[in-house]
Amino acid sequence: MEVITLTVIKNALSIFALGGINEIGKNMYVIQYADDLLIVDCGAKFPDESLLGIDLIIPDITYLQEHKEKIKGLIVTHGHEDHIGGIPYLLKKINVPIYGTRFTLGLIELKLKEHKLLRETELIEIGSDSALHFGQIDVSFFRTNHSIPDCLGIVFQTPEGNIVHTGDFKFDLTPVNNQFADIHKMAEVGTQGVLVLISESTNAERPGLTPSEKLVGHHIEEAFLHAERKVIISTFASNVNRIQQIVDATIVTNRKLALLGRSMVNVVDVALERGYLTIPEDLLIDAREVKYLPPEDVVVLCTGSQGEPLAALARLASGNHREVKILPEDTVILAASPIPGNEKGVSRIVDNLFQLGAKVIYGSSSNTGMHVSGHGYQEDLKLMLTLMKPKFFIPIHGEFRMLHQHRLLAESVGVKRGHTFIIKNGDVVDIENAKARQTRKIPSGDTYVDGIGIGEVEGIVLRDRKQLSEDGMLVIVLTLSKADGSIILEPDTISRGFVYAKESEDLLLKVNVLVKATISELQEESKQQLFVLKREIKKAVGQYLFSQTKRKPMILPIIIEI
Amino acid sequence: MEVITLTVIKNALSIFALGGINEIGKNMYVIQYADDLLIVDCGAKFPDESLLGIDLIIPDITYLQEHKEKIKGLIVTHGHEDHIGGIPYLLKKINVPIYGTRFTLGLIELKLKEHKLLRETELIEIGSDSALHFGQIDVSFFRTNHSIPDCLGIVFQTPEGNIVHTGDFKFDLTPVNNQFADIHKMAEVGTQGVLVLISESTNAERPGLTPSEKLVGHHIEEAFLHAERKVIISTFASNVNRIQQIVDATIVTNRKLALLGRSMVNVVDVALERGYLTIPEDLLIDAREVKYLPPEDVVVLCTGSQGEPLAALARLASGNHREVKILPEDTVILAASPIPGNEKGVSRIVDNLFQLGAKVIYGSSSNTGMHVSGHGYQEDLKLMLTLMKPKFFIPIHGEFRMLHQHRLLAESVGVKRGHTFIIKNGDVVDIENAKARQTRKIPSGDTYVDGIGIGEVEGIVLRDRKQLSEDGMLVIVLTLSKADGSIILEPDTISRGFVYAKESEDLLLKVNVLVKATISELQEESKQQLFVLKREIKKAVGQYLFSQTKRKPMILPIIIEI
Repeated sequence: MEVITLTVIKNALSIFALGGINEIGKNMYVIQYADDLLIVDCGAKFPDESLLGIDLIIPDITYLQEHKEKIKGLIVTHGHEDHIGGIPYLLKKINVPIYGTRFTLGLIELKLKEHKLLRETELIEIGSDSALHFGQIDVSFFRTNHSIPDCLGIVFQTPEGNIVHTGDFKFDLTPVNNQFADIHKMAEVGTQGVLVLISESTNAERPGLTPSEKLVGHHIEEAFLHAERKVIISTFASNVNRIQQIVDATIVTNRKLALLGRSMVNVVDVALERGYLTIPEDLLIDAREVKYLPPEDVVVLCTGSQGEPLAALARLASGNHREVKILPEDTVILAASPIPGNEKGVSRIVDNLFQLGAKVIYGSSSNTGMHVSGHGYQEDLKLMLTLMKPKFFIPIHGEFRMLHQHRLLAESVGVKRGHTFIIKNGDVVDIENAKARQTRKIPSGDTYVDGIGIGEVEGIVLRDRKQLSEDGMLVIVLTLSKADGSIILEPDTISRGFVYAKESEDLLLKVNVLVKATISELQEESKQQLFVLKREIKKAVGQYLFSQTKRKPMILPIIIEI
Repeated sequence: MEVITLTVIKNALSIFALGGINEIGKNMYVIQYADDLLIVDCGAKFPDESLLGIDLIIPDITYLQEHKEKIKGLIVTHGHEDHIGGIPYLLKKINVPIYGTRFTLGLIELKLKEHKLLRETELIEIGSDSALHFGQIDVSFFRTNHSIPDCLGIVFQTPEGNIVHTGDFKFDLTPVNNQFADIHKMAEVGTQGVLVLISESTNAERPGLTPSEKLVGHHIEEAFLHAERKVIISTFASNVNRIQQIVDATIVTNRKLALLGRSMVNVVDVALERGYLTIPEDLLIDAREVKYLPPEDVVVLCTGSQGEPLAALARLASGNHREVKILPEDTVILAASPIPGNEKGVSRIVDNLFQLGAKVIYGSSSNTGMHVSGHGYQEDLKLMLTLMKPKFFIPIHGEFRMLHQHRLLAESVGVKRGHTFIIKNGDVVDIENAKARQTRKIPSGDTYVDGIGIGEVEGIVLRDRKQLSEDGMLVIVLTLSKADGSIILEPDTISRGFVYAKESEDLLLKVNVLVKATISELQEESKQQLFVLKREIKKAVGQYLFSQTKRKPMILPIIIEI
């Protein structure tokens, strides 16, 4: 006979995401056992065009603020923006110790310095062999391969069973710098038994196994050998292993290396200082020296491979860089595939580069060999599932179709139907007595960061911005007598984002006539309240303008009573 | 001894583009010999997100308006939006006879009806064997393959030599409906001698030969055979050959066909009426009947394959379609690749479809086989160049990198270096005595269509909209004494798209204090002019708000003098 006591329910193990589900970005996951709560990652996401003027999106942390006393720590799997970008904003609300590897902490420190939060934050360096204890949860790690050094998967040992969080990963059997993944350790974890596997899903739609980063190195070296003049190469600043290969190709071809772009300089500094990058002392030159060296002796490594309009590559391509000019026959390599949404920006840059007469190596990675993904394809994901043999499976880090495909992959290697939980941000998976169920929901959502120090933008502000952005606005100023409500000064109209060349004068004159008529009609019998006048002016003018222009500018009546 | 008389110069042949260069969209080309001017195509382009509130972009036709009397006609190569979308706007300024094939004219008529321009427009039907004469220019045609029926290439015979304009094309040796391209005629044109080839460049970056449209038909039929319940398939309404194959697969699998989406219904009507599509009478059903039929008997053909948020597929995917519901195990096929820029919208729809439990066939055409391009790849382009053997070459219809690649292709099959002209919109290629040079420029650019009937949006309006969209605005109303400039009513502030929750009240109070201080200081010695007061208020408040919020809302001081 099964007896479920209240104690068991109280001790239940809970898993949920505050970000990272049905999106690529702002990853934040929580493992809670009774009164011990651990956070995994705290990322940010960049807004799309519909979020006018918003700088950054971070997870809603209401739940964490309400359970502050239970939080034992934030464990960070690796140093990408979608895993660390939200940390400063979390720290402004909750002070929590942060655990990460040497390189990850280096990138977090950069961020905390910028936000002047470094001094008050407790940063604890861990490695793949660390063992941590937080109340009833023991934590250990395994090393994974990804497109940034020093990545970890996490094993949580709870009284209920073991939970594994993969972090972001691929299997690269010939990694740069011999940073091998701990496949044996993963196998051992699987042998010990995994209750729940939480695994990333970014490339669950792509068949096959991700190619090794080493491949990119071969292609870079070949391109450098063929280049007759300057080489400009752009990649993600955080892809230190690719940067190492660019360094190596620079050495082999007897060139010097200049770095362009703030994040490139910053990350290379961290990587050098912490031993993740080896660059001979005399290889690096200042960007200002480039123009004095023979072009065949130079490589310029820069940011901006995603077409970011303010980054180094965009400035080079438009001829607006102060130190470095791209000249005919220079070779420009885009060593990164455009992330969905960035294709147009990248194409614009490639056009500009061709206009300057450069030879441009660009396009899909399968054509150029200048990029490989850091996220495992279907076979990588199946290998992880096979190694871990989980009872329950929670696919994370992906949009819905990726989670869906990942579920099918899990079932193809033996996870039982019904044992995969496709959750949303805020959905809680509760596990008790080796039974998992998903019934509860905690608060979750997007928190917008807009400017600094002021707080969050509200829905109404965004709606206003949208209307203003599409149709502009019309301010109507009217001065009325306080005594009898009669018009003292003629209406004046001011438009922004709405007027059109010549036709507009006539249109605005007619608006004036309409406003006067509306006011006179309303006040005919008795003086009306201001809000009534405003409402009726809005209505009358709005209808008139729509009939004339098919546009709905924001109408802002201002009535002064004297 | 060579004698160049003034007459020869006056008669020179000129070729230029008013749209279609360094862009995909708003194609419009001009061939002029002395006083005879012919226009090829008149397209529109859809704006990107930076053009806030703009509905459509059409070419600047200043040059045509200034040379109205020379215009002999508009010849339309085919019926895609980027070749016919600008016609109503051209006709509002210049009445010009329009030449096109039967199907092309059908689509143009739809457009003219919408704009109430059909009655006053002269539409002249031509076929691939038509011969036209415009002053000193004779015009003939050849049939090409593309992703819409009834496409033409154009041969202009001028006293200076023959000009060939390819229109959009690929070589499909097994076309649907046996609409074979006139390869023999093209060869003959080449044998007679081509002075200038004007050829499209859309896929100049892609190696190989475009696959045949027939391939898509095989994949569609196979998918229909495997579908156990309803099939929903989405493709471009204008791709009538693909629609024919969908019709055929529907017949083979004993299903009925419902059409969803206004443009799908309209284009199918035109195609049926003009004989480009064969549908058995009892095959078509009304959308309202779908829910009463067994799901395995139904195919729904709909618009929205590019993720357009208001099209049929998006409404089906979000469960908001009145007549048709997507149910678990239904099969949804996206028979179109996302056009660059549309990836995110398409992904969102795929996510929604999976959430409804549908089986979704989506992704790159190389994986699914559900789409082939209508634009020739590199081998198609080389075949056209080889058939035509032009002396001079002008690559058109593409962004710069595509034109650049097309030039390399031309040189690889024998066009001499220096004989390719990579022009911009407005650049004129003048040809005299078999010599071509590019030195002149005529007015060109983007004309924005915003709403209806009002005219064009100016740069300043767009800049205003951008500022309003990102940072919102703050209106400051102030009433001053006309006599001495003293403040009669306290400043009032109204913000839109800018205020933030609680902090804002305090912020706006401080703005009021600042405005009063600024006014008092300025008026201390003597009354200032209004524009000085406004300028100084803007400056003081702008600086203060930026220091507090890192935002730059539009500041609009309104001063009433009583």
